[in-house]
Amino acid sequence: MSELRRTALAIEKGLLEKFDSWMAAHGYTNRSEAVRDVIRAALIEEQWKDPKAGVVAVLSIIYDHEVHTLAQELTHLQHEDYHPILCSQHIHLDHHNCLEVILMQGTAAQLRRLSDAIISTRGVKVGKLTLMSKNV
Amino acid sequence: MSELRRTALAIEKGLLEKFDSWMAAHGYTNRSEAVRDVIRAALIEEQWKDPKAGVVAVLSIIYDHEVHTLAQELTHLQHEDYHPILCSQHIHLDHHNCLEVILMQGTAAQLRRLSDAIISTRGVKVGKLTLMSKNV
Amino acid sequence: MSELRRTALAIEKGLLEKFDSWMAAHGYTNRSEAVRDVIRAALIEEQWKDPKAGVVAVLSIIYDHEVHTLAQELTHLQHEDYHPILCSQHIHLDHHNCLEVILMQGTAAQLRRLSDAIISTRGVKVGKLTLMSKNV
Amino acid sequence: MSELRRTALAIEKGLLEKFDSWMAAHGYTNRSEAVRDVIRAALIEEQWKDPKAGVVAVLSIIYDHEVHTLAQELTHLQHEDYHPILCSQHIHLDHHNCLEVILMQGTAAQLRRLSDAIISTRGVKVGKLTLMSKNV
Repeated sequence: MSELRRTALAIEKGLLEKFDSWMAAHGYTNRSEAVRDVIRAALIEEQWKDPKAGVVAVLSIIYDHEVHTLAQELTHLQHEDYHPILCSQHIHLDHHNCLEVILMQGTAAQLRRLSDAIISTRGVKVGKLTLMSKNV
Repeated sequence: MSELRRTALAIEKGLLEKFDSWMAAHGYTNRSEAVRDVIRAALIEEQWKDPKAGVVAVLSIIYDHEVHTLAQELTHLQHEDYHPILCSQHIHLDHHNCLEVILMQGTAAQLRRLSDAIISTRGVKVGKLTLMSKNV
Repeated sequence: MSELRRTALAIEKGLLEKFDSWMAAHGYTNRSEAVRDVIRAALIEEQWKDPKAGVVAVLSIIYDHEVHTLAQELTHLQHEDYHPILCSQHIHLDHHNCLEVILMQGTAAQLRRLSDAIISTRGVKVGKLTLMSKNV
Repeated sequence: MSELRRTALAIEKGLLEKFDSWMAAHGYTNRSEAVRDVIRAALIEEQWKDPKAGVVAVLSIIYDHEVHTLAQELTHLQHEDYHPILCSQHIHLDHHNCLEVILMQGTAAQLRRLSDAIISTRGVKVGKLTLMSKNV
């Protein structure tokens, strides 16, 4: 962990009060920890704007495994472009629905393209790409 | 998979054109598939507004495992309230950073509370709760 | 963790020396910890002899995802009998080979049957069922 | 998948009958598939005898997360030598017991050393290293 440094912060009273409520509602007990987390979230949004930036992502999908050849197609899509895929995890939610979570590392452009290809496949009912980064 | 049913849709020309561009940019080749996906996304947002609704979520966190006793604390938090946790997956991104993905199923209120407790822990640098559902 | 209890152990000098070497070679620094682990291993073997015993297992397979419809078949097999499957993890080892690890909980008979059905599928090149248990 | 080639096989009648029973008991319907699988199993055993051979392994452990600082120690051990670890998966079996499965790729010597260090840690109740390989 990097060394912590103290810095002052000028902020409107009303805004600080709202932030303190937000903090409490989200379980934070330390204001600095909460501010650091919102700063990191903003930096990650920024990194993802650069298509060549090296980022990390989690793609979560729910699909109906009974749709003809869908499992085969999803495996095929993932292997065609398998370099950014770190690993994936699969849960059988019920007789029809699968939850699959795919961990990816690569450029922002590469991860968006792979994610779009998977989410737009017929039979994938819900797909969400969660933007992460380790450079924060 | 449930039976598909045909239905008509009245929509402004301009809006349809924009949606067709969005579809193409996201890799959809079938407009019905794309419309079904955005409808499902709206329904999931709605379900999550009811604290008692049964939902599914993926919590993605990045943390520095060298922060004193953090791994112990995260394991403890997850066991104290382990019923909604289905399983979790862990990747060592580099010497400091871990990516952990936790799959959860329970009520919206329960998953938000557990997620907040984990994200607000000191040393967890990035945390995002991705809202999913199998009832769509 | 259950309370530890002290007990005496009569053992041949030669056997104890060999066990101490085995311990050292396997990284144990505490003889009681090592003895407890070999006792647990024997009990697990015993539990698995009873087809109705509740056990835990890890099925590890390596397969060639390009074998026609194999991914579809494996998903189908797992869903047909999805109750004992807790979750599974998938890694793309290279362009051809997948490593899939399936965590299961159920009766010994049920887990052996499901494991056999998966391992004997054409295209699954290596399959090993690792016998575990939480009742030790 | 590599091209299949036909080859003849001389085998004692009694041995073949026993193998056919074994095949049936394990769900194989194709004798060639079954013979290929036992050949691969033998080759993997052989590869693991060479400490420098590049192999794949699955380490399955059950541990009591309430043993003081165990989760911290296991994370530390895995990070100290994180290069061979591909990813890991964690399930909370009950209030005490965790099942963790760690996927590894590296030399046989490296994977055995890391596996021994983890299994011999106090609080790890059951640990099994499953030898795999993708070069078969």
